[in-house]
Amino acid sequence: TIDGQRLWDTLMAMAEIGPTANGGSCRLALTPEDAAGRRLLLDWCEAIGCTWRVDRVGNLFIRRAGKREDLEPVATGSHLDTQPKGGRFDGILGVLAGLEVFRTLHDQGIVTERPLELVVWTNEEGSRFAPAMVASGTYAGEFAVEDTLARRDADGVTLGEALVACGFDGDMPVGEPRLDGFFELHIEQGPVLEDAGESLGVVTGVQGMRWFDVTFTGQSAHAGPTPMRLRHDALAAAARLIDRLQAHALADASGDTKVTCGCLDIEAASRNVIPGEVRLTVDLRHVVETELDALEALFERELAAAGETFGVAVSQQRIWASPVVEFAPECIAAVEAATQAQAVPWRRMMSGAGHDAVYVSRVVPTSMIFIPCRDGISHNEAEYATPEHCSLGAQVLCDAMLARADR
Amino acid sequence: TIDGQRLWDTLMAMAEIGPTANGGSCRLALTPEDAAGRRLLLDWCEAIGCTWRVDRVGNLFIRRAGKREDLEPVATGSHLDTQPKGGRFDGILGVLAGLEVFRTLHDQGIVTERPLELVVWTNEEGSRFAPAMVASGTYAGEFAVEDTLARRDADGVTLGEALVACGFDGDMPVGEPRLDGFFELHIEQGPVLEDAGESLGVVTGVQGMRWFDVTFTGQSAHAGPTPMRLRHDALAAAARLIDRLQAHALADASGDTKVTCGCLDIEAASRNVIPGEVRLTVDLRHVVETELDALEALFERELAAAGETFGVAVSQQRIWASPVVEFAPECIAAVEAATQAQAVPWRRMMSGAGHDAVYVSRVVPTSMIFIPCRDGISHNEAEYATPEHCSLGAQVLCDAMLARADR
Ligand SMILES: NC(=O)NCCC(=O)O
Ligand SMILES: NC(=O)NCCC(=O)O
Repeated sequence: TIDGQRLWDTLMAMAEIGPTANGGSCRLALTPEDAAGRRLLLDWCEAIGCTWRVDRVGNLFIRRAGKREDLEPVATGSHLDTQPKGGRFDGILGVLAGLEVFRTLHDQGIVTERPLELVVWTNEEGSRFAPAMVASGTYAGEFAVEDTLARRDADGVTLGEALVACGFDGDMPVGEPRLDGFFELHIEQGPVLEDAGESLGVVTGVQGMRWFDVTFTGQSAHAGPTPMRLRHDALAAAARLIDRLQAHALADASGDTKVTCGCLDIEAASRNVIPGEVRLTVDLRHVVETELDALEALFERELAAAGETFGVAVSQQRIWASPVVEFAPECIAAVEAATQAQAVPWRRMMSGAGHDAVYVSRVVPTSMIFIPCRDGISHNEAEYATPEHCSLGAQVLCDAMLARADR
Repeated sequence: TIDGQRLWDTLMAMAEIGPTANGGSCRLALTPEDAAGRRLLLDWCEAIGCTWRVDRVGNLFIRRAGKREDLEPVATGSHLDTQPKGGRFDGILGVLAGLEVFRTLHDQGIVTERPLELVVWTNEEGSRFAPAMVASGTYAGEFAVEDTLARRDADGVTLGEALVACGFDGDMPVGEPRLDGFFELHIEQGPVLEDAGESLGVVTGVQGMRWFDVTFTGQSAHAGPTPMRLRHDALAAAARLIDRLQAHALADASGDTKVTCGCLDIEAASRNVIPGEVRLTVDLRHVVETELDALEALFERELAAAGETFGVAVSQQRIWASPVVEFAPECIAAVEAATQAQAVPWRRMMSGAGHDAVYVSRVVPTSMIFIPCRDGISHNEAEYATPEHCSLGAQVLCDAMLARADR
């Protein structure tokens, strides 16, 4: 059995690196804080005899030897970087639960058949370098190594330069080591488990996501003298689109359709000026790829209709698409068996958010474990998961990894 | 008859003070540019024997003597200050048409019974010091002199300090001189006349206006894992309100209901975060005060309903209300008679925008004259009115003033 108190203590110790005013953490990828977090983890892992390597995009692989070093390792991991005002759990829990698994095996003198790896993926959040999950994506062959190294932060520093500056510029080829399986423990980042009074989620896949930049181009004009019928109000068209997308998503009784407009900017906005240009972001998600296609088609129709209705030119660009992910049945089964053994309420579920496991799953049999987080809040200093849930999640992770490593 | 070419030349000469990159003007109130514009005007007026005084809030009264100096003068005027990227006509036309009237009378050796005044009102635009029309409002007793002098620009400079710095800190008590009548020529700032192929508008009043600040407070959360039914999406609620207000205003066949949402800001917006807080501005206008009351009541109902529908707390504050203005029948009649004499298409109309005439009309019999502006565009460097329309407007102004001054 894993030691829940010890896991909690490491979570709280890690949170002291880059602490924020309201109890969260700020460890942007490849900053001195991120590097300090990695070194703290390495100190802990070296103390129990682990070795480590770093690949060319800074992914950190920490190895616990197995009986059969010729076999591919069973891996776990997540990320240590945070949002600018991030929490103590998003990503960190997945890494430190892996440490806790290693410590538990060390205490009990257990050596698994296959070796184990604890992976810290670089720049998951996408806050410093876009996009999110870029280094696990590079591991999986989604992005070219040179492209990833050339990505720049807001100050123009490349990811490659930042790796050198913080001392995590490794030389292991990206894609090594090959893994036998990957399990990622994460907070749900949503309210479903908490709402249902459930303690664990067996994650069977990740919903598909598509991101769009939308522009509405009307004509700015004075709010007072311009008749309603002669207006080309870009905000009215944007509001119509938002309202129609909301209505459509809310009408889906299955709850599988998700639509979010997160950013809306009015060019040269003024209280008594009809908005002439509006930029809007649209995030569409669904657990079924063909339904996501249909949702995108509906979005395009509603966008055209809104433009037509208000005499506003519309254009949109799809800037990202992540297909629906189905995790590996044998990994899901391993997580499910370990979950059932805990005798707490649980459910099978799709992940609503992207995680490193999305990309890793393209090249390695993968599954995830979710625990509830308070009020579903994440990417926020107020993010919180109970010690009991963290402990439960780590136990399931341990059991699933052992089952796969010794199969 | 007035000299249209001479009027046009003064408009173009004034535009050379504070010129902007795209053919507009930037003369923010009481800046060196605004002062230079006033001095240029004073040079022109002194050359034809006018005298001038400045009141304590910088309103400039330029007098052309009449036969009966014991009678109250008939006045015209507008403003010389502009928006940061303003046009060559908004306000300026009303001032320089007054100059053209004086020059025409001077050339023809005409002396009116009553004296005439050309007034340049301080800070009409409200761009440097809020609110708009503050100095004509002070003249009319709407604002206290000390309050007006204490208003600060974005750099913390008071209006009183700016008056001293630019040399227009007068000592005439505000409210003097009392006026017998006030006529203001202005571009329409909307598309109604142009659309109808009409050259002149006889302005019978100004629609009522009410400004609101609205706040929607929901709960920010991750776009991916948060089910639609558990969301508190502040932007969805704002979009619903905007859409309902638009539908209501567009359904008014009379065209008298006007609704504009000019500013919308999302707190800590991010593409994959459900908006937790949205601030929206609402501008409601109508030509009938009781209809404006009904429109405000509808806005309150739709706001409450939108909040209810999306589980979002709503609040609103009315930050400004300008009642419907009905101009003086005898001044409207004078403008109408002068307009009919031009034998061009014209209409009686309400002003959609606020002007200095709104406040002046509270204490002085007032009316306005509108000419078309290209595409209805104003508050924009591209603002344009034809020389022919400027000339027509100035002729009507001249005839209306003469009729009243010699009645
Ligand atoms: N976990 C997370 O925030 N991933 C970013 C991509 C997404 O929006 O789901
Ligand atoms: N003319 C003008 O822009 N006035 C400001 C008040 C309004 O919005 O009508």
